Amino acid sequence: FLLSLLPCLGGKKSIHGYKKLIHSVKVGIALVLVSLLYLLNPLYKQVGENAMWAIMTVVVIFEFYTGAMLSKGLNRGVGTILGGGFGCLAAILAHEVGGIGKAITVGISVFIFGAAATYSRLIPSVKKRYDYGVMIFILTFNLVAVSGLRAEAVIEIARERLSTIAMGFAVCLFTSLFIFPMWASDELHYSTASKFNNLASFIEGSLEEYFKEMGTEKKENQSTTSFIGCTSVLYSKIKDESLANFARWEPWHGKFGFSHPWYKYLQIGDSLRELAASIISLKGCLQSHRQPQSVAVRMTIKEPCEAVALSLICTLRELGDSIKGMKRCSPKVLLVAKLQLMRLELSVASSPSRLVLENCDGLAMASFVYVLME
Amino acid sequence: FLLSLLPCLGGKKSIHGYKKLIHSVKVGIALVLVSLLYLLNPLYKQVGENAMWAIMTVVVIFEFYTGAMLSKGLNRGVGTILGGGFGCLAAILAHEVGGIGKAITVGISVFIFGAAATYSRLIPSVKKRYDYGVMIFILTFNLVAVSGLRAEAVIEIARERLSTIAMGFAVCLFTSLFIFPMWASDELHYSTASKFNNLASFIEGSLEEYFKEMGTEKKENQSTTSFIGCTSVLYSKIKDESLANFARWEPWHGKFGFSHPWYKYLQIGDSLRELAASIISLKGCLQSHRQPQSVAVRMTIKEPCEAVALSLICTLRELGDSIKGMKRCSPKVLLVAKLQLMRLELSVASSPSRLVLENCDGLAMASFVYVLME
Repeated sequence: FLLSLLPCLGGKKSIHGYKKLIHSVKVGIALVLVSLLYLLNPLYKQVGENAMWAIMTVVVIFEFYTGAMLSKGLNRGVGTILGGGFGCLAAILAHEVGGIGKAITVGISVFIFGAAATYSRLIPSVKKRYDYGVMIFILTFNLVAVSGLRAEAVIEIARERLSTIAMGFAVCLFTSLFIFPMWASDELHYSTASKFNNLASFIEGSLEEYFKEMGTEKKENQSTTSFIGCTSVLYSKIKDESLANFARWEPWHGKFGFSHPWYKYLQIGDSLRELAASIISLKGCLQSHRQPQSVAVRMTIKEPCEAVALSLICTLRELGDSIKGMKRCSPKVLLVAKLQLMRLELSVASSPSRLVLENCDGLAMASFVYVLME
Repeated sequence: FLLSLLPCLGGKKSIHGYKKLIHSVKVGIALVLVSLLYLLNPLYKQVGENAMWAIMTVVVIFEFYTGAMLSKGLNRGVGTILGGGFGCLAAILAHEVGGIGKAITVGISVFIFGAAATYSRLIPSVKKRYDYGVMIFILTFNLVAVSGLRAEAVIEIARERLSTIAMGFAVCLFTSLFIFPMWASDELHYSTASKFNNLASFIEGSLEEYFKEMGTEKKENQSTTSFIGCTSVLYSKIKDESLANFARWEPWHGKFGFSHPWYKYLQIGDSLRELAASIISLKGCLQSHRQPQSVAVRMTIKEPCEAVALSLICTLRELGDSIKGMKRCSPKVLLVAKLQLMRLELSVASSPSRLVLENCDGLAMASFVYVLME
């Protein structure tokens, strides 16, 4: 049965495609597991209609990355407990007041807590990490406070719902952690490393294009793809931040310890984005009409340009590899020194070309990145 | 009572702070309105326990922008109907099979639909617009299919829940549209216009810094804030896309018609981001050690530089204003021509400085943006 599903869903055979497929199958398994609460008679007798809450929990908190799932699950748990607690207090207060004042007390407390919690959701630092938890807080508070007016055994209801939510969370935890886990930390690690490669191949492509522009035009396609790679580096800030946020929640696994310095990935990402900005403006230079049109003029600066670009590409690639393998890259202190020397040489040789100047600029930033790494 | 809430929540008096406050109060009102379903006896007799679904709907779909709320609400509605429909079919199929096969049929259908829908959530184009709807589809399908095994009157339950969800949606619609609506389209419009200003003031700041570096250092602070403005332009892609997505859902209001070309805002945004990238690399140039240190050398290029920068700043500001006011800026065809002329002049005068070259580059892009506008 599983085999018949594979060809119809997994059209593309790339690694990312497989990951998506695995995730879908995992969700399916989790849903079936949690549905057992309904389907098996002995279990149903225990939980009853509250099994609904377990299904809801699985559907809502099962995210692609394990870290995202953990963060959502914990948010949901804490939000439910706090919301339920305050809701009970409000319901008890309303009972104390009694009479027509009951409904008014509940209405006022719903308004105050709802407005205050919504306001806190709009504060950026809360929004970033606890948005979902606050939403669940509002929801639970309202449900408990309002239904506390009708049902007598509020605390009993709250306890039962909480235990079914915990069951749903346990099912998620099991499927997410033990069946092909997808770590946000791995993704952050490899995407940071591949950014170096993207930038390097864009520099390579631009250089080739510049010195071959007069000749064949077949490279057009390749340079466009590497340009897309470069802009994707530029726009990766928000994705990186959410990955780092999820990675923080993930337990110890593989080569990442508990207190792995995730914020450093963000710093490296920032430097890479600045570098990407200056590399992209290099593209603007290439398209300018005021570049020397004759090949001869271009050739005069070809050699130093290529030397600089090549060492820049090498540095970027090696930095990327060293991040990927998590090893120090000490032999490259020499390389950076060499680059500094070459830069000076180049600046003397090549004042007429803007391309080279841009390259130097990129170089300065590359060494900045390098310093940051050490 | 409302007045006592104002000082404690609205610490900062900025327009955005007030907007947040208004939004919070609106959520509070919507919650109280929907709680009336529970609190008022005649209403409660009509809907019963299903009022829970109305509260849940309000808490979950009430978003900051009207467009976001509409999009989430419609997603939820369509997802619920489709999920409920398929869930009923699965439950009826299970009844036909009967016996122990009942539970197995439901389990298999839950697995297939859950996995397939989750896979579709991971496709980028679906994720962008219908992510929430698909999630609700999975949730409703599961609940209906699974509880269909126990309860006999599945269709009756589905109808009641759907009507309470519709009530919740109606409350949201009312509060969101008629009490100080916040339009994502307005936000997109003004943020696009203010991007021009951000870039202009960054150029202004850099120029001042460059020609005053030797003198007083008091400008440091201001240039940092304008640099942040510039990088925020660079990283605004995802925010713009979601705003444009929401704006598409918003009904006719103010100066925006039904078929307002929102994709053009995204195009302008892309051009502005390219321009921002080259302007930021200008900052790299300023910090370079190889800039001429003597003021005298710098002064030789001061005049043409300032001329270019000034017209660039003017163009950007006027473009921003014309977008804000939604009027054509025909008299500036002349201005762009003037810029072209000055650029030529400048390139002859100033080969030794990289700053000017960068300016030229930015200029080329500015005219590109301008062409795009017409």
